[in-house]
This record gives sequence, C-alpha cells and structure tokens, in this order.
Amino acid sequence: MKPYLVGVDLGGTFIKAALVTLQGDIVKKVEIPSEKEAGPEKVIANICKSIELASGENIDHVEAIGVGSPGALITQKGIVCNAVNIPGFINIPLRDLIQERFGIPANLENDANAAAYAEYWKGAGRRSLIMVAYTLGTGVGGGIIINGKLIRGTNDCGGELGHITIVPDGEMCSCGNRGCVEAYASATFLVKHTSARLKKGCSSLLTTWLREGKILTARLIDEARRAGDEFAAEMLQEVGRYLGIGVANMVSALNPDVVVLGGGMMKAGEIILEPVRREVKKRVFLEHYEHLRIVPAALGNEAGVIGAAGLVLERAGIEIC
Amino acid sequence: MKPYLVGVDLGGTFIKAALVTLQGDIVKKVEIPSEKEAGPEKVIANICKSIELASGENIDHVEAIGVGSPGALITQKGIVCNAVNIPGFINIPLRDLIQERFGIPANLENDANAAAYAEYWKGAGRRSLIMVAYTLGTGVGGGIIINGKLIRGTNDCGGELGHITIVPDGEMCSCGNRGCVEAYASATFLVKHTSARLKKGCSSLLTTWLREGKILTARLIDEARRAGDEFAAEMLQEVGRYLGIGVANMVSALNPDVVVLGGGMMKAGEIILEPVRREVKKRVFLEHYEHLRIVPAALGNEAGVIGAAGLVLERAGIEIC
Repeated sequence: MKPYLVGVDLGGTFIKAALVTLQGDIVKKVEIPSEKEAGPEKVIANICKSIELASGENIDHVEAIGVGSPGALITQKGIVCNAVNIPGFINIPLRDLIQERFGIPANLENDANAAAYAEYWKGAGRRSLIMVAYTLGTGVGGGIIINGKLIRGTNDCGGELGHITIVPDGEMCSCGNRGCVEAYASATFLVKHTSARLKKGCSSLLTTWLREGKILTARLIDEARRAGDEFAAEMLQEVGRYLGIGVANMVSALNPDVVVLGGGMMKAGEIILEPVRREVKKRVFLEHYEHLRIVPAALGNEAGVIGAAGLVLERAGIEIC
Repeated sequence: MKPYLVGVDLGGTFIKAALVTLQGDIVKKVEIPSEKEAGPEKVIANICKSIELASGENIDHVEAIGVGSPGALITQKGIVCNAVNIPGFINIPLRDLIQERFGIPANLENDANAAAYAEYWKGAGRRSLIMVAYTLGTGVGGGIIINGKLIRGTNDCGGELGHITIVPDGEMCSCGNRGCVEAYASATFLVKHTSARLKKGCSSLLTTWLREGKILTARLIDEARRAGDEFAAEMLQEVGRYLGIGVANMVSALNPDVVVLGGGMMKAGEIILEPVRREVKKRVFLEHYEHLRIVPAALGNEAGVIGAAGLVLERAGIEIC
C-alpha cells in the first residue's frame, strides 16, 4: 500500500482536506471556501483543488481519497443525493468524479459518521468496543461504531441520533418530526429557545450584549455563561439534560463503553457534559452506567478529515493501527 | 459436528427445552414447571431434567446446550447474577453446572436476545441485514442483530429496548426510571392503565366482565376488543402508539430493514401493529421507512428454545444455514 490517504470534509462554508498517514496522523491540511453560491460545478472544482493542495507533490503516494459529505447519500455508489446546505448539490456522483479526476480510488461517507470514526480511530473513543458519538452543531449528527465497524444502516441512514424522539409532542424539528434530540440540543435551537426566553424578560447579561448590537449565537451564550451569567448557564444545562435523554436511550439499546460528544456546541464543555452524565445515570441500569465513559471529543474540527480518510480503510476491511 | 443442539428457555413458571437440529428445526420439545417456590436447587434440577427429556436417547448426538435466562447475567462466564422472577436464583454458574452435569459444552444468553435471534435465524427476520426485535410480555425485552451478530453490549446489557425513555417525566417503570417503553407497552402496564381508566367510569364491556368475576388481563382486554369493545381497542392502540415512539428511535439510530414484534401481547396483532407503523412513519426519515418492514414474530413461544440453541452457533462464530 502507498503511505498516504487524503481525507476531505465537505461543508457548506468551507472544504477541509488533509494528507493523512495510514496511522491516522495529519501530515498537511488545508481549508478553502466551498463557494457554494457559485453552483455545484464550482464546489466540485474546489473539492478537487483541496485534494491537490493537501496532497501536493505526494499525490503519487496517495492510496485512496475519502470524502465526508452532509445530506442524503448513497455511499455504496458514491452519490450525494442532496447535500441540503449546498444548494443544487443534487445527485452528484462525487466518488466517481474524484476517482476519474485523480486516478485514485475514492470513498464517500456521511460527515457525522466520519467525525465519529475519527474519534474511534485517533480520538476519545480509541479502542472502544461499542462507541456512540454525537456531533452537536447547527444540527445534531451521530455515529455508531461496534467492534471497529461503522453502523451505516440498511440504506446509509444509520446513526441519525439527532432525530431520536425525546419528547413525543415536543418542539418542531427541522426534519418535520416533533421532539427530536436536534430540536433541543443543536446550536440552532439553543439560540431559538434562549431568544424566546429573553423576550419573556429573563434577567441576563445577554440582554445588555444584544442591546449593544451583538448577535445571539451559541458561542455568545457560552461567553455569557463564562462571564458568570446564570441564565446562560441554565440554557446550556438544559441542552445537556435533553441530550442526556437521547444518550441514555442509546446506552440502553447498545450498552456502549464510550459515548463521545463533539461539535462546536461542546466548546461549552462540562456545563453540558455534567447534566448529560446525570441524566444518563438516572435513566439507565447500574450495569449500563458502571462500564460507561461519557467524554468530550478529542480531535476538534480535524475529526472530519481524519475520519473520512479512516473510513476508506474501514470499508475495505483493512485492520487499522 | 454432532447433529443436534438443545435449547432451554428458563421462565419463572415453566422451563421449556427442545432438541433442535443444526438447521434450527425442532425435533422434540418439552415443558415442565420450574417449581421456583422449591428453591434454586430444585430449579437447576428441573433445567437438567428438561434437557434430559428433550434430548432423550439422542443425548450423545448433542453438540452443545444453549440456555436463555431472564434477569442480569454475565454471559461470557455463564453466570446468572439475579434471575429476578425466580427468588434466590442469584450468582448461579449455570453454564458450568450444565457442562459438568452432561459433559457437553453449554452457553448462557439473555432470554429476550434468544427470542430475537430465533426470529433472525428461522422466523420473521430471516436474512435481514439489521434486525431490531421486541418481546412484549409482562415486561418488554429486546434484541438487536446486525449482520448476523447479536449486539450483546459491553457487559451483556445490550438490547434493553424496554427501558428506552419515550416520555421524559412519564409513568414510573419497574426499573425505577420514568417513561420507559415498558411503562407503556408491557402487559403489566396495559392492565394498570386500563384498570385506572375503568375506575374513572369509561364505558366498556370489561366493566360487565369484571363484575361477573373475570380477572383483568391483557388477554381479557384483547377479548373485549375482538367482541367489538371500542374502549378496549383504544387501550391496545395506545400501546402501539407508545411502542411506536420507541421503535422509531431504534429505526433512526440503526436504520434496520426489519423490526419484529413478538411476545404474548402481540396476540392482539394488527390493533397494535398498525399504530406502531403509523407512529414510526411519522417520526423517521422517508429513507428510513421505505426500506423497513415492521412485522409480527413468526415463532410464537418456540422462539426462546430455538434462539438459545442458535446463539450457541452464533457465539462460536459458526455460519448458520
């Protein structure tokens, strides 16, 4: 085998790519705008450009290219059916386009699955038997790894942990269902709930900051919490409590040894983790909890590219080291 | 390999055992009382007796003995930690006791997992890629089979699908948590809810039957439904609706091709199945639903013995036929 892989993380705003060793270590990484407003052809050209930039003169030593994409996919055929947050990126045979362009085998995977696999390979879930991972960002993604194998599901829809119902008649989710994990634990909904509560007149530093012209984001809420704002802390703890119900459900179903929580929201850290742990402990069997670690992700925003590269090996059935 | 297996299904009231071919067909089956009130020694003696009766003169042609047990187990060591509904059946090294008694390899598994595996091997989930199974009885058990492998979990607590939270602050469950599937979809809770509603003065055939001295059971509720009682039908549909939330959650997480619903409660059939399907369809992605069958179990109360036998092969990594 050649010594390198390339991992690509296709996002709505940026495309990340990295040259990765067969051991999962990043040699070089790049990040370029996806330029989605210029249309799907341009996005595809930028994906190829990111691969060129990351591999550079090592392109002849690249064994395979792995891509993590958002949206609905047919990974076995390497097709992006609908990338949702990239307008017009519909029915794109991305794997074959890349294979033809570079003459190197390529592989397509769900981006949340890639992030999960990275944490299993090189991050917080290393050597776990059964790992459940969440990516908490604008939405909530998930991934399940059992005995080193990614659970892709019957038709590539496994690991949709953000769309597990936790409140039967709860908040409307972006997917059209009510009461999903995502409708309580995503950045989008954190901002929405916080805004609604602020309008009701809750006392918070955020009120002052918004009056000063700041924009309400998950990051701003966490900043207020760090500055000692109790209301902001409460909002983040609520995210943890609801997320904890979803996590507890996966713990009862799969009895994992590790649950990894990652994504932008997890920059808030223990303020979310602690209520997750408390809620899980309350809801699962003692036997489930005593062998379980609930930990923050370790790889930050490198997870996407590392995991996209790693899943090339996983799909080929090659033992990882 | 020798041509037969013995499967044992240890229950609180009866012990079932069967001589089963390597193809999963029952050659002979027996059912004897467990006599739990006579203490654990007697129950163990009865387990051995059931094995003798099922195997008879074929005992020398038995390759291995599989036992399905309720309660908390350490299956890798073959120990029943606490059989819960068999008083005093605590820390029993059941696998080794059977191995020593018969000089034949034995294997211990969770009874709901055994029932699930039987449906995968010989029943409604045959040849499925990803199967999720429920056993709806006094409690609610579960089992998950992915690519032919049972998901036992990190420490034998995988597949506790009855203890997934579906209503965060809902009914108190026997496990101490609130709002579990079991607290809505088990026979125990069906009877409890129905009784409470009847006391509030709901109009039902059941009121008359209870006045005549009949005992309220899940079966009686289903009898009333079959006799045209609308209230009874509503009670069973409610079971289906709540169960459907739990099923939807597993569908989002694992993207199975088959969900099998079995156990005594499922004698009610479509009146439960139909609202389950409706609720799942409402809550999962279209992609999840279009490749999914939600079907009744096919093996009835033979599932326990067939699955206990089958899991001997599964644990040994022997390809089933």
